[in-house]
Amino acid sequence: MTAHVGCPGFRFAGVRGGIKKKAGLDLGVIAADRPVATAAVFTSNRVKAAPVVLSQRALRAARGKVRGLVVNSGNANACTGPRGAADARRMQALAAAAIGCAPGEVLVASTGVIGEPLPMDRVETGISLAGAALTETGFAAFADAILTTDRRAKLARREVRLGGRTITLLGCTKGAGMIAPNMATTLTFVVTDAAIAPGALAAATRAAVAPTFNAIAVDGDTSTNDMLAVMASGRAGKAPLAGKALAAFTAALTELCADLARQLIGDGEGVHHVVTVQVKGATSARAATAVARRIATSPLVKTAIAGGDPNWGRILCAVGNAGAAIKPERISVWLDDARLCAAGARAPDHDEARAAAVMRQPAYTMTVDLGVGRASASYLACDLSHEYVSINADYRS
Amino acid sequence: MTAHVGCPGFRFAGVRGGIKKKAGLDLGVIAADRPVATAAVFTSNRVKAAPVVLSQRALRAARGKVRGLVVNSGNANACTGPRGAADARRMQALAAAAIGCAPGEVLVASTGVIGEPLPMDRVETGISLAGAALTETGFAAFADAILTTDRRAKLARREVRLGGRTITLLGCTKGAGMIAPNMATTLTFVVTDAAIAPGALAAATRAAVAPTFNAIAVDGDTSTNDMLAVMASGRAGKAPLAGKALAAFTAALTELCADLARQLIGDGEGVHHVVTVQVKGATSARAATAVARRIATSPLVKTAIAGGDPNWGRILCAVGNAGAAIKPERISVWLDDARLCAAGARAPDHDEARAAAVMRQPAYTMTVDLGVGRASASYLACDLSHEYVSINADYRS
Repeated sequence: MTAHVGCPGFRFAGVRGGIKKKAGLDLGVIAADRPVATAAVFTSNRVKAAPVVLSQRALRAARGKVRGLVVNSGNANACTGPRGAADARRMQALAAAAIGCAPGEVLVASTGVIGEPLPMDRVETGISLAGAALTETGFAAFADAILTTDRRAKLARREVRLGGRTITLLGCTKGAGMIAPNMATTLTFVVTDAAIAPGALAAATRAAVAPTFNAIAVDGDTSTNDMLAVMASGRAGKAPLAGKALAAFTAALTELCADLARQLIGDGEGVHHVVTVQVKGATSARAATAVARRIATSPLVKTAIAGGDPNWGRILCAVGNAGAAIKPERISVWLDDARLCAAGARAPDHDEARAAAVMRQPAYTMTVDLGVGRASASYLACDLSHEYVSINADYRS
Repeated sequence: MTAHVGCPGFRFAGVRGGIKKKAGLDLGVIAADRPVATAAVFTSNRVKAAPVVLSQRALRAARGKVRGLVVNSGNANACTGPRGAADARRMQALAAAAIGCAPGEVLVASTGVIGEPLPMDRVETGISLAGAALTETGFAAFADAILTTDRRAKLARREVRLGGRTITLLGCTKGAGMIAPNMATTLTFVVTDAAIAPGALAAATRAAVAPTFNAIAVDGDTSTNDMLAVMASGRAGKAPLAGKALAAFTAALTELCADLARQLIGDGEGVHHVVTVQVKGATSARAATAVARRIATSPLVKTAIAGGDPNWGRILCAVGNAGAAIKPERISVWLDDARLCAAGARAPDHDEARAAAVMRQPAYTMTVDLGVGRASASYLACDLSHEYVSINADYRS
């Protein structure tokens, strides 16, 4: 099963250092055989955890070529002041020694409780164990080590034929606000054996993230630690991808990210329904996205999803709050193929029982046609349930 | 007790027409003896209910002088298409006949379920009963008639001495998203006997609303029907207010609105804690407001308030998401006088038990000092509780 747990050019480890209070792996390392093209996107939150600040600088200084990364779960190393910055640098240096490279060639990520200093003795133990455990088939263990209160590991794999060669993409992600509210939140790592220049990889990564990880909403709170990194070993080809092959790679990366993003939403404790919010007929893609995001983050829409209530008035209320150009009298709303609203009012064929049946499904599509243009956008939303409140109100840091 | 239920120059009625399914008054009328200076602010939602659109036009056409207003609860007349517009006009004409004025001199407001046509027979019954019931002491009945699922009527009164005369301000408000999610939501009406020009009244109203009704957050969803109107009979003076007297009137109106806004937040079912979010040390008032609003609407902060968890990391996370100019390493956070965070990290005197005790109170202040400027802003926030989810998930329209 090497095919499912590895990718040529990389070794992985996931071990337990004891950083997490509960049982489970909490320290992961990815090591490339040599400096490889690497791209990453980081949280837009202006309060950034120490590892985020450090990794952004390292990636820039290394001009998009690094040897590896180290990640711990159980502690976010966020809002930890100068000590947190020093701890992140120490993690980087320890991991570099384990991999056998310079500290500047290692990215650092953390996820967990905010505001507590890292237990560095346990981090050291973990990195030392991980260094000894690095193996080509260790991706599944690595994917386990980044989890916090996730119910299951979230992995995805894609293969794509490019110029007579098969390129592999392998990724994992962890935990949304819904499950890990105080855990600072989304981490995603992708490895591939594609040969690709750092600049092209950065562009492909941005393109892949926009309609996937940047188009999901749990509670609208962007964490201090979010990070997604893609490392490309180049083992599957000599010449860097370009033209059509690069486009095909970008498409495969986008598909992989969409797969992971959907798993991420679906794994939330308290999430019983994953709803694709499809907005069309907008004057611009920006307007369509604004409307989709507003619907996906509206507490009133999300509680209606939880309750299975086909309350289209709340959907129109959210549309009107998005700040986008609309004409209320042109809006139509469907749940799957059950039309609720036409011309901004109750549809003549409105069938509450049929719509309620759609909403009992674990996954369905909410379509909103604004009727004023040709642009569209899609967002993944979920319910706001009692469990969400319990998890977030009763959680003690 | 005339002093508590009336205001010179106005008659009021609150009656039952049968529009609400549950028991209670549901139709209210305010009638002035002559056209009086009137100002109003309306929802910023681009999906506006028919009565909002009609009232905005009427107030403009009447140049800020109207004779009265009619309001129903139990049905929002929102997203009801051309029929809804016709129904709102019919309400206006019926109320004008009851008051004895032209239709264009009457404002119309509705609150309740979205997307259902108004039961016009019951509305007609109600207006007819209200016309017969108009009395100078009917303000309390009027205040009852605008309620939906509010637990109690919310009234406030202020008196202010201006130039040797006592001016009265009397107001009432209804229901926040927390209690009446599908009920489209906030309606507020204020009457005063002040003599004031329409333009000055409009300016005073805008000034009074900004730090009060526009600085409270239940769930961040602005309804399709929100409206606040102020009518001034002029009975308390001949010359219109100007200069210092106008400033004193504006201050009294702001105080009255603050009182009503606090009652509105506190009356939410599911609301157990009202938290004043005080942001200071910001580079601008706009930045301070953006940070305060983001904290007040963050689901993670609101569930922490519900759970009494002094989770200051979530507060910093919300600060970082506000888009305002900040330096994380300068931020301090207090709950009342318990400091949680200093210099962007855990405060040396951090005392979790003391902070938790603060959070058990029904009302307390969360202070965030950004440490980068001198501007400040305040917002009223509340908890996101199990009851909120129950009310919103289980509600069936």
